[in-house]
Amino acid sequence: MADRLLEAVTAGVRHVDLGRQLRVGMPQSPNHPQFWHTLPRRHGDMVRADGGSAANDMITTGTHVGTHIDALAHVSQDGRLHGDADATDSCIGGKYVEHGVHTIAPMVCRGVLLDVPATLGVERLDGGYEITVADLDATVERQGAAVEPGDVVLIRSGWSQLFEQGQPYVGGPSGVPGVSEAGAQWLAERRIHAAGADTIAFERLAPGKGHGLLPAHRVLLVESGIYIIEALDLEQLAAEAIHEFTFVLVPLNIFGATGSPVRPLAVVSA
Amino acid sequence: MADRLLEAVTAGVRHVDLGRQLRVGMPQSPNHPQFWHTLPRRHGDMVRADGGSAANDMITTGTHVGTHIDALAHVSQDGRLHGDADATDSCIGGKYVEHGVHTIAPMVCRGVLLDVPATLGVERLDGGYEITVADLDATVERQGAAVEPGDVVLIRSGWSQLFEQGQPYVGGPSGVPGVSEAGAQWLAERRIHAAGADTIAFERLAPGKGHGLLPAHRVLLVESGIYIIEALDLEQLAAEAIHEFTFVLVPLNIFGATGSPVRPLAVVSA
Amino acid sequence: MADRLLEAVTAGVRHVDLGRQLRVGMPQSPNHPQFWHTLPRRHGDMVRADGGSAANDMITTGTHVGTHIDALAHVSQDGRLHGDADATDSCIGGKYVEHGVHTIAPMVCRGVLLDVPATLGVERLDGGYEITVADLDATVERQGAAVEPGDVVLIRSGWSQLFEQGQPYVGGPSGVPGVSEAGAQWLAERRIHAAGADTIAFERLAPGKGHGLLPAHRVLLVESGIYIIEALDLEQLAAEAIHEFTFVLVPLNIFGATGSPVRPLAVVSA
Amino acid sequence: MADRLLEAVTAGVRHVDLGRQLRVGMPQSPNHPQFWHTLPRRHGDMVRADGGSAANDMITTGTHVGTHIDALAHVSQDGRLHGDADATDSCIGGKYVEHGVHTIAPMVCRGVLLDVPATLGVERLDGGYEITVADLDATVERQGAAVEPGDVVLIRSGWSQLFEQGQPYVGGPSGVPGVSEAGAQWLAERRIHAAGADTIAFERLAPGKGHGLLPAHRVLLVESGIYIIEALDLEQLAAEAIHEFTFVLVPLNIFGATGSPVRPLAVVSA
Repeated sequence: MADRLLEAVTAGVRHVDLGRQLRVGMPQSPNHPQFWHTLPRRHGDMVRADGGSAANDMITTGTHVGTHIDALAHVSQDGRLHGDADATDSCIGGKYVEHGVHTIAPMVCRGVLLDVPATLGVERLDGGYEITVADLDATVERQGAAVEPGDVVLIRSGWSQLFEQGQPYVGGPSGVPGVSEAGAQWLAERRIHAAGADTIAFERLAPGKGHGLLPAHRVLLVESGIYIIEALDLEQLAAEAIHEFTFVLVPLNIFGATGSPVRPLAVVSA
Repeated sequence: MADRLLEAVTAGVRHVDLGRQLRVGMPQSPNHPQFWHTLPRRHGDMVRADGGSAANDMITTGTHVGTHIDALAHVSQDGRLHGDADATDSCIGGKYVEHGVHTIAPMVCRGVLLDVPATLGVERLDGGYEITVADLDATVERQGAAVEPGDVVLIRSGWSQLFEQGQPYVGGPSGVPGVSEAGAQWLAERRIHAAGADTIAFERLAPGKGHGLLPAHRVLLVESGIYIIEALDLEQLAAEAIHEFTFVLVPLNIFGATGSPVRPLAVVSA
Repeated sequence: MADRLLEAVTAGVRHVDLGRQLRVGMPQSPNHPQFWHTLPRRHGDMVRADGGSAANDMITTGTHVGTHIDALAHVSQDGRLHGDADATDSCIGGKYVEHGVHTIAPMVCRGVLLDVPATLGVERLDGGYEITVADLDATVERQGAAVEPGDVVLIRSGWSQLFEQGQPYVGGPSGVPGVSEAGAQWLAERRIHAAGADTIAFERLAPGKGHGLLPAHRVLLVESGIYIIEALDLEQLAAEAIHEFTFVLVPLNIFGATGSPVRPLAVVSA
Repeated sequence: MADRLLEAVTAGVRHVDLGRQLRVGMPQSPNHPQFWHTLPRRHGDMVRADGGSAANDMITTGTHVGTHIDALAHVSQDGRLHGDADATDSCIGGKYVEHGVHTIAPMVCRGVLLDVPATLGVERLDGGYEITVADLDATVERQGAAVEPGDVVLIRSGWSQLFEQGQPYVGGPSGVPGVSEAGAQWLAERRIHAAGADTIAFERLAPGKGHGLLPAHRVLLVESGIYIIEALDLEQLAAEAIHEFTFVLVPLNIFGATGSPVRPLAVVSA
């Protein structure tokens, strides 16, 4: 066994789960098909002659539901996707052949947590709070770990503490904290591979305004080719103060889709 | 950066994708809800005032469709799941609270490929061929890498060469190659963590017989608590003769489901 | 052409549509899978050599969504369905073989509207208002048309005026007007065939209480074998003061389901 | 009770069901999302304090599945729908606002069965047989009931005798009997309202050719604005030699869809 990676793995690793459990009724954006799971067949419905029985499932869901990743095909600006691809022509036969989620390679790379509430000394950021460039710089400095090209950067707001409450997590009257255009530019300048947040829409949403404008999506997806990961659970990472880690994310390889549910991991040596 | 794993990752890794692309119309078992993907919203359907537009998806699918993992709740014998759990009582409110797919921890561990056709000197095994204990022993010996407790063992038959043809992959008249009860016992004795195959049902299916009896499922899932991974693509691993690797598999965390689509990876140092 | 019915039809008929249009985002009970419609294929996605093209749809929905009918299998009391059928045993292989919606015969029969707000001199009843036996008696007397055995009786509250507003229609804080146990008994005593209402749950729901107890469902479905039709649009019937009519309702013949979306008609000679 | 129609109805009517039961696994076109029905909640999953319990359903399906009606938006020719509507522009926000199934009025009108096998003295027509204009003329003459403008005309081939066999009903190697362009012109000239058949695609399909060309769809839907009803069960009507009847068809009012499952009835005085 000469493989360096396998040696590190067999020496002992553990992971922190950054994905939300998929449950019927969990909070999600009303713009997307609801997550549903049901059992067409339960044990006992059909028992074979030898006493064996199988149960199985049916799932219906949007792809921008639960913890998920946005493919570059998700957002267009003035009719263009990333790299000036025509947003209409990129869809062939009902599939985003260009920039669909099937074009996102699985990620096994360096991940960095930017724990903004820890920097600001609060439990979580307020609804509608804009995470500024100064906040990002201060967090990097406090944590002492630089953001490098190719990294996946996860920005914690603490907002996911509200996930179990349902509607408050979605925002609405309160707004939702997040980066806006300036913060997205800061990320893009660092040539990161993907950016994530513990909120439903990644963006700072103003109180009572909804999802009308999405400048960070434009900067990251359209202008910079940087994937966005939403609805992460970053609480345990923060509690353990793990700021650097091996980030693992494997999107479902759905041909032509604009996103995929994912269950990202932060993996560290045990 | 003192993390051994992260050092190995940043030094350079690459992966071999062991999952099938999810496409409408791909071969699957007729017992499970078909995979469907459609775009409720395409670019241009609804353009915001600022020229931005978002496209999104709807997915409907069984969980035992495409490359997928079986949870222990998938199969019962004489009314019992693994560990003598009552198959009826384990389902609470329409969810397999016990042994559901949400109880499968993400896997980052040692994986072993057992390339049986290479041992037998054939391109792929015949439909209905039973992979014997002798075949498994000969393959381990030829490859020179032992199977250890906790490993994920992937058994190649070459059958997935037929995937693109559709119906022949499913089997039916031809049958499908695979291990049967004896091979499953061999795997269980080695106390592996999960077993996978490049076929739709993992089992050896006799020509023209269908899925009437599933002894390997009983031995692995019910008697031994060993997960089963199906419809893997093992051709590239075999072509590169990668027999040991870091195996990564992250099931969707679907509360109470009996399985999940997955996209497993074999990761190696570059 | 000697057929009496066909003579009446060809002499001229018109209908009043009592069903709601099925639209993504319409108000519905959160307990049931959301209605979704999407186009997997649009014109232009795949054009045949001769210049022809077909577009098609995918629908996902609960059956108790939009205007719909409840089969007797929908509700049980103390483990029994109507006629003392065992609620567990009536479900065979994941289908309510007994009392499923496939057992409801299409209806072409006499329908009667009971316009309660017209009797009470209000535009619509208040949320949480209980339609009493006295209200029902007064409405029959005012309208001058008796309720006969075998009739379908539609009880108007005016609540469907709120349908376009969405959440207020569902109720919640305001409650929803409707009959309760006494009104359901009144209907059952008249041995009607089915009862309908212009609300989401047929029942009177107390303000802020939700769907915790459903006495009218018990009386009608379980004790009396009388079907329930919900989320009707009765505004036009009331505006035209059509109190007797030919009622047409054809459930989808879904084997083993507990309900079906329907589009009932009131048909009258033109 | 002065309503002529209601008098005819209360004097006694009966119906013949022309729709197929919707069952998981029934034969359907592979181009459309499969029909699935499952029970997210069964009795006993969640019992209320008072001993009551509700079971419910989830449905996923195409709209051109089972017995169904094609809206005019279903088929285009050279980029145009019926009435020269632009096929692309008719779809707004992912809905066929023009010519969608929501624009089909419920039908309560005269229906005519054309029992072609009875005319030809066979049990059913052969796969690939083209029902000619001469066949249609001979059938009208034999039956003695003219086709009038506004009628719904149902053409029996007897092919639905194969429905329970599954794959043979779909056609494929055998082809499917039906009218082709000439027969469709014959129907269009008679200015009927809708045309139906007891086959999956209405059209004559040549053996082994599939659905490559659909001339009757073009003539009826695009050129003539005549709806098409498919997968009817016409066996009982034929057995009873009911050639004229009151035809009742109520499509689901799905905003913007290209079709709807339906359960048409032939209603006659008892």
